[in-house]
Amino acid sequence: MTLKTVPVVEKIMDANDQVAAENRKLLDEAGVFGLNIMASPGSGKTSVILQTIQRLAPKLQIGVIEGDTAPVTIDADKVMAAGMPAVQINTGGSCHLDAPMLSRGLGALDLKDLDLLIVENVGNLICPAGFALGTHANVVIASIPEGDDKPYKYPNIYRGLDVIIINKIDLMPYIDFNMDYFRKGIEILNPGLTTFALSCKTGEGIEEWANWLLEKVEDHKK
Amino acid sequence: MTLKTVPVVEKIMDANDQVAAENRKLLDEAGVFGLNIMASPGSGKTSVILQTIQRLAPKLQIGVIEGDTAPVTIDADKVMAAGMPAVQINTGGSCHLDAPMLSRGLGALDLKDLDLLIVENVGNLICPAGFALGTHANVVIASIPEGDDKPYKYPNIYRGLDVIIINKIDLMPYIDFNMDYFRKGIEILNPGLTTFALSCKTGEGIEEWANWLLEKVEDHKK
Repeated sequence: MTLKTVPVVEKIMDANDQVAAENRKLLDEAGVFGLNIMASPGSGKTSVILQTIQRLAPKLQIGVIEGDTAPVTIDADKVMAAGMPAVQINTGGSCHLDAPMLSRGLGALDLKDLDLLIVENVGNLICPAGFALGTHANVVIASIPEGDDKPYKYPNIYRGLDVIIINKIDLMPYIDFNMDYFRKGIEILNPGLTTFALSCKTGEGIEEWANWLLEKVEDHKK
Repeated sequence: MTLKTVPVVEKIMDANDQVAAENRKLLDEAGVFGLNIMASPGSGKTSVILQTIQRLAPKLQIGVIEGDTAPVTIDADKVMAAGMPAVQINTGGSCHLDAPMLSRGLGALDLKDLDLLIVENVGNLICPAGFALGTHANVVIASIPEGDDKPYKYPNIYRGLDVIIINKIDLMPYIDFNMDYFRKGIEILNPGLTTFALSCKTGEGIEEWANWLLEKVEDHKK
């Protein structure tokens, strides 16, 4: 008789992937492009979202799902103050969103009214990498003060991206950040990756990022 | 007949706490004070460790255990270049150290030669909070560019601290950081907590922090 093993982790991942596929179907049927934003705490995810809303609001209806490890609505409140619908998912201490959580978030939005769904994942450079949500694109927001070695130290989250944003470039004069070393780390993991360097403070680079995203949303509707 | 339930999570935590108690005993027997440093990626954990070594090396023998989610030795190499023994624990993708991992790390150091053990936990503001290691003090290193709302958003890791370091204060002129709001968030979670605001770049505040730590190490030997 052979020992039977139960691959619990694999099964959980499969279940997540199944729900992610259902989420994708819901988004596609409603013609909504879904963007999953991952980053460290304090990299400026919410600031980038607010800048993106400001640039694209005249052209697109944008919904935001905020993933938070604690029941504080700081980020969701900012999005609603910017005039867009927001849903907060409190993960109850967990370090990432997963597809079933996003599914519940989608149920709380009128998807047919939206063109773009932005998901702000929990601030974490490790856990979110392991859980597909069903969105159409994954972006990591790096920030200058985090340092230039992050792609080397956190390769799982920097791998398999559709685009990367390098935020807070206004701080470059005050920080030892070797942009070539950082870009080399990104390139090893994602050859030819689209990259936007920007500042939510000065507005530099925001337009290029917003135009790229607008094109993705419009292509998705075709 | 009543249904029997198996509290798996609770049992795992118990097992971790048991090993943490063994780690504590090992440290105490060797007269080593253990410090667990937790923080976001890029908050400056390694820079603070290097500054601490520079200030205290003439008086103390310091060992460092570096927790990394990937098999890169960037931080451990820096510590060894500073002339102190370092051990790297690669968590294999996991988002925190636990007591059994630290136990293996302790086995790789000559504890009897040390006065102070600094543990650099994995860069993460969520996971490390749930796992005692057996060290004597927990510190979080916050950094100015992360923003002033982090204690509110990540309360589990900011709770139950022995000391907090606010790093990168040289960046205050360039960032909207409300120090009163930040300190209020800390105070709610840790009334009267010892706080050091410092800059590894200018050296401001390092001496006060190093003196506090030296006193802790000396008190522990008594």
